[in-house]
Amino acid sequence: MLVSALLTSVGINLGLCLLFFTLYSILRKQPSNITVYAPRLVATQKSEPRGQFDLERLLPSAGWVKQAWRLTEEELLSLSGLDAVVFMRIFIFSLRVFSFAVIVGIGILLPINYLGTQLSDDSELVNKSLDSFSISNVNDGSNWLWIHFSAAYIFSGVVCYLLYYEYSYISDKIISHFYSCKPLPSDFTVLVHGISTSSGHTVSEDVESFFTEYYPSTYLSHSVVRRSSKLQSLIRDADKLYRKLARLKSNKDTPRRFKREGPLGLFGRQVDLADQYEKKLGDLEEGVRIQQSLLAGQEVPAAFVSFKSHFGAATVLHIQQRINPTEWVTEQAPEPQDIHWPFFSTSFLKRWICNLAVVAACIAITILFLIPVVIVQGLTNLDQLETWFPFLEGLLKITFISEVITGYLPSLILQLFLSLIPPVMMALSSVQGYIAFSQIQKSACIKVLWFTIWNIFFANVLSGSVLYRVSVFLDPKNIPTVLAEAVPGQASFFIAYVVTSGWTSVSSELFRLLPLIFHYLAKVFARKDDEELVVPQIPYHSEIPKIIFFGVLGITYFFLAPLILPFLLIYYCMGYIVFRNQLLNVYVCKYEIRGKFWPIVHYSTIFSLILMHIIAIGIFGVKKLPLASGLMVPLPILTLLFNQYCQKRFLPLFKAYPAECLIKKDKEDQNDPAIGEFYNKLATAYEDPAMKPTQYSLSTESHSTPLLQAAEVENLA
Amino acid sequence: MLVSALLTSVGINLGLCLLFFTLYSILRKQPSNITVYAPRLVATQKSEPRGQFDLERLLPSAGWVKQAWRLTEEELLSLSGLDAVVFMRIFIFSLRVFSFAVIVGIGILLPINYLGTQLSDDSELVNKSLDSFSISNVNDGSNWLWIHFSAAYIFSGVVCYLLYYEYSYISDKIISHFYSCKPLPSDFTVLVHGISTSSGHTVSEDVESFFTEYYPSTYLSHSVVRRSSKLQSLIRDADKLYRKLARLKSNKDTPRRFKREGPLGLFGRQVDLADQYEKKLGDLEEGVRIQQSLLAGQEVPAAFVSFKSHFGAATVLHIQQRINPTEWVTEQAPEPQDIHWPFFSTSFLKRWICNLAVVAACIAITILFLIPVVIVQGLTNLDQLETWFPFLEGLLKITFISEVITGYLPSLILQLFLSLIPPVMMALSSVQGYIAFSQIQKSACIKVLWFTIWNIFFANVLSGSVLYRVSVFLDPKNIPTVLAEAVPGQASFFIAYVVTSGWTSVSSELFRLLPLIFHYLAKVFARKDDEELVVPQIPYHSEIPKIIFFGVLGITYFFLAPLILPFLLIYYCMGYIVFRNQLLNVYVCKYEIRGKFWPIVHYSTIFSLILMHIIAIGIFGVKKLPLASGLMVPLPILTLLFNQYCQKRFLPLFKAYPAECLIKKDKEDQNDPAIGEFYNKLATAYEDPAMKPTQYSLSTESHSTPLLQAAEVENLA
Repeated sequence: MLVSALLTSVGINLGLCLLFFTLYSILRKQPSNITVYAPRLVATQKSEPRGQFDLERLLPSAGWVKQAWRLTEEELLSLSGLDAVVFMRIFIFSLRVFSFAVIVGIGILLPINYLGTQLSDDSELVNKSLDSFSISNVNDGSNWLWIHFSAAYIFSGVVCYLLYYEYSYISDKIISHFYSCKPLPSDFTVLVHGISTSSGHTVSEDVESFFTEYYPSTYLSHSVVRRSSKLQSLIRDADKLYRKLARLKSNKDTPRRFKREGPLGLFGRQVDLADQYEKKLGDLEEGVRIQQSLLAGQEVPAAFVSFKSHFGAATVLHIQQRINPTEWVTEQAPEPQDIHWPFFSTSFLKRWICNLAVVAACIAITILFLIPVVIVQGLTNLDQLETWFPFLEGLLKITFISEVITGYLPSLILQLFLSLIPPVMMALSSVQGYIAFSQIQKSACIKVLWFTIWNIFFANVLSGSVLYRVSVFLDPKNIPTVLAEAVPGQASFFIAYVVTSGWTSVSSELFRLLPLIFHYLAKVFARKDDEELVVPQIPYHSEIPKIIFFGVLGITYFFLAPLILPFLLIYYCMGYIVFRNQLLNVYVCKYEIRGKFWPIVHYSTIFSLILMHIIAIGIFGVKKLPLASGLMVPLPILTLLFNQYCQKRFLPLFKAYPAECLIKKDKEDQNDPAIGEFYNKLATAYEDPAMKPTQYSLSTESHSTPLLQAAEVENLA
Repeated sequence: MLVSALLTSVGINLGLCLLFFTLYSILRKQPSNITVYAPRLVATQKSEPRGQFDLERLLPSAGWVKQAWRLTEEELLSLSGLDAVVFMRIFIFSLRVFSFAVIVGIGILLPINYLGTQLSDDSELVNKSLDSFSISNVNDGSNWLWIHFSAAYIFSGVVCYLLYYEYSYISDKIISHFYSCKPLPSDFTVLVHGISTSSGHTVSEDVESFFTEYYPSTYLSHSVVRRSSKLQSLIRDADKLYRKLARLKSNKDTPRRFKREGPLGLFGRQVDLADQYEKKLGDLEEGVRIQQSLLAGQEVPAAFVSFKSHFGAATVLHIQQRINPTEWVTEQAPEPQDIHWPFFSTSFLKRWICNLAVVAACIAITILFLIPVVIVQGLTNLDQLETWFPFLEGLLKITFISEVITGYLPSLILQLFLSLIPPVMMALSSVQGYIAFSQIQKSACIKVLWFTIWNIFFANVLSGSVLYRVSVFLDPKNIPTVLAEAVPGQASFFIAYVVTSGWTSVSSELFRLLPLIFHYLAKVFARKDDEELVVPQIPYHSEIPKIIFFGVLGITYFFLAPLILPFLLIYYCMGYIVFRNQLLNVYVCKYEIRGKFWPIVHYSTIFSLILMHIIAIGIFGVKKLPLASGLMVPLPILTLLFNQYCQKRFLPLFKAYPAECLIKKDKEDQNDPAIGEFYNKLATAYEDPAMKPTQYSLSTESHSTPLLQAAEVENLA
């Protein structure tokens, strides 16, 4: 890629970003868009649609940027919870890393690279290849390479220091958040699964007798899980119907209430839809009741067991309960709204096999993904298109169209395929046997991250067949050299990738293009009042891998091609503002996972450091500076040791709270007058929402309490 | 190796074994040898030296074999503890595996191999190479190889079944042993190390306040560890002196009591040694008291904390106590007599670094061990010897002597070097930061095992430079082929190894050659009454790797060269009898590790199965049966899955007891009237023996109670 091409690309994408930012600044102020741009505020009733028109609404303004920037961490914590804070720490960490990297990379390394003569590229600045700014341009055996060598050491040290700082900062946050929180049901509850019952006893009886016998002083209550997927779908139907009916009844005079029978509703007598719905709802309600009474006996060998104290629950959680460790397995209970109920119908062995199958499927998808993509991309070959669709021949001869088809279409297809990956990985993770949505999301996050690293990084770097790419890793001796020869050449691709994919993805995240389109489609094609307010949970599983991947790119290319660094810094700046803003307005926190994403960031950073070191070992060899290559070997070892230390020092807190905190909190709770009420709630918190009694009050038109309960319950599940 | 050579070797070694067995049968009956052949019985006062002479003493008899064979597992458990039982289970497991292997290998595979014509060895049976009995003799592409293929599958299945059975059997033993045992201090105690103290407080004060605040209902007492290595050596000296003095005083009339002063004791006035000793002892005792009072302040940030119940201790053990997981780290306390006191002087970071250094040292020793061995072995080169020691020239010309030097000396040197390895590994493990001798022994066992597998198996199979051997493993793709080409050819070497090293090592273990020699040397050169009775702990760290290694050999060669199998079966038979006998008479159990050796056996068996599968994949490729090679691939995967299942199913029990058992046992204890007395003992059980008050009663001649205490304490430490 030439400098001029880069400048063009930067220009186009900067323009796109500005466009999105401006559009957002205007569109967010339109009252009709409020459910797209501030559903969170609508849900919490902090914002009401404004009716009046004023001119300001049509002018772009940057007040929201100031607002997002000013938001303190404490405010963010109280608004969106700990996960949002940790999520934003990723940006802060990245901003710090790349600020340092830009200073060293652009201030020192870039001039050295540019002054090299290895590539003997004598063209003018704008026509120079981007490779002139990369390490490839430094002469073989040049002593300038020792600067790169030192930079690699210093940069690794700085990154490790920042990692340590961030890990320790987040650990402190977790502890102080724990102390300041109200008691949560999940902290008092343990999920026991794989319960083997003695003959003639029900699961409930056995759980009751075990815990009253062994933990008489701390045991509070339990809820046995029941197989309720069919019931859940019935309730969903009933609930939908009830809402329709309620709407219908509240608009008595609308003509929609009546509908003709017969084909296309043209013939036959007019019927009152409300009557029809009411009858259906009655049937459904009956069905729900029958199912509920049937299910009361259908126990799954799993139960949520609640205790009177944090420490009591932790004791049961940490100590193996039964002699056979595959039975009566204890696990931290998720928050009630975080439970993935379908999981419970599977046994230990089935889950284990599912787990293995999912791992195999993920590896297969990750390795073989590019095959269909390349085939579909092949269709954008002009000759191929002309053969298949002869009528397009004239069209394809137009330069602009042919350029779009050959230049943009393949990468668009890749992006489309890539956007399928997060949901696919979510689906795979959800059959893996996790009991909580948050666990599924975390697992999907890791899968998507590795997928991205493999299919964006390695697939581009190691061109050639899939088999060749895999085989590189089966020959560990040659990895440094292979990577050193392949990686620097791809720098310009990745710079373009940061600009096109990174920048625009952030700004389109702000713009919320797809929700906006759906919003208008719903307005056009459906009745407006059918639209439900959707307040999304931030999709960590698709966002975090993206953000981390750019970090991996930046660290890997730090001394190879420092030109990438300022583009990354801009990306993180934009991301910082954008995500602080849609955390404020768009996303809610349905379930917390208490910053458990951070270790993923930590490991990926360590991975990218090691990758950088391996490439450095290779590149100093290729550049005929074997001494530097040899002296680079201790660096990855030191980094791994640092990683091991961090693991010992911080990781345990991300798994469970220490006794000190638990007992302190328990003592505070004992002095809390509200604890009795909390125990009462706790006793029923883990009952399957589908098993709670529902009653649709058909005679009145106002929403009755049972319905609200049913609807809430529906939301939670 | 030819059949005739094998027969000669088997003959010689069988003769040696018989000789050792016969010598043992006679020597064990000599009263003067009783401290060598039955120290355990002497120590437990079950056997008194017989004074009278009778003819029977000079005749070999096999009564001991019957006695050893008849011993039931319950008797063994009560005599030598759980570890001895688990140790014998290794033999039982191996006997079962190789009984099956012999039936299939000798009954089916050996004839097939022998009928092949690949090697076209037409010589007579006795002159045939042993390779004619190995898979190398089966024709390339022959369908007979499918028999080998099936045998590999069936054998793997049988071994896995036996492994599962054995794991589950030993798990049951561990549980029932736990229930039947008296309460042990270690089950009630947790070692807390890395204690960070608040300013102005001693470690003891902080421990006391933490546990009384957080565990008021279960906390019993604690003992802070003190830095006592200097004190320990003083006490050792004092104790030795006291014993000498006591002996001297009890034989008043011996001339030894008086000694002349001056050089060689020839000149000068006669002095009363007793007076001299008494003075010295007084000084030492004073020194001990001063040191004890000094040390009372020198606390190490570690303490043994005892609780009132098993479950109370387990709770503290399993839950992280403080926010910083590298401080106040809890660990299961070892039994008091099992504590490795010197460990306590090191900090967390120092231990971590030591650990890493030890791992590096072990890898270096393992990889580079053969270099000095080969150099020393090179000295046995005849020409070299003649050049260096010209006067030997005549001697070396004698055929017998030159044959011994070239034939036996190199392997003798290798064996001598090998015998250094277990103590070296013990020394390395002891600086690794383990707090118990049993942990050190287990860690050394693993090190010795890997050392053996690398330096006996791989070093012989992959001839060539050290670098070449390491590089094979850096090229994973080619491992199956490289091994398939190299391993079968070494079959005859390993058959000879089983016969020479395996058989004779077991029978010389019975014969106890070295202790016997030391026993007689002590008799000749030293006063008889100076000899102390040494009752050894069974050296698991050197015996278990040996036994496992033969199993690894057998499983790896099962279908490659089944001829090895009967020799192994004989080895395990001999071992079974010999070790049951020295467990009866020789070894005591100073400290238990509750069968924690078993997982090592399990993993090594899985390792050897996988090794067999990898070689099978390679060999079917080399033998031009690619389909079989491909169909072999699922087998290692299945084996690994089986291993993972076993790990989930059984391993937790080898780490800690489940809550069910702990609480049941606690309930039993509560009803035990002796528990109050046990608590009193528990409160002082973990005091450093060196810190207990010692008093040598010099005026009386009988052993006073304080001395006995000091001597006991000495034994325990």
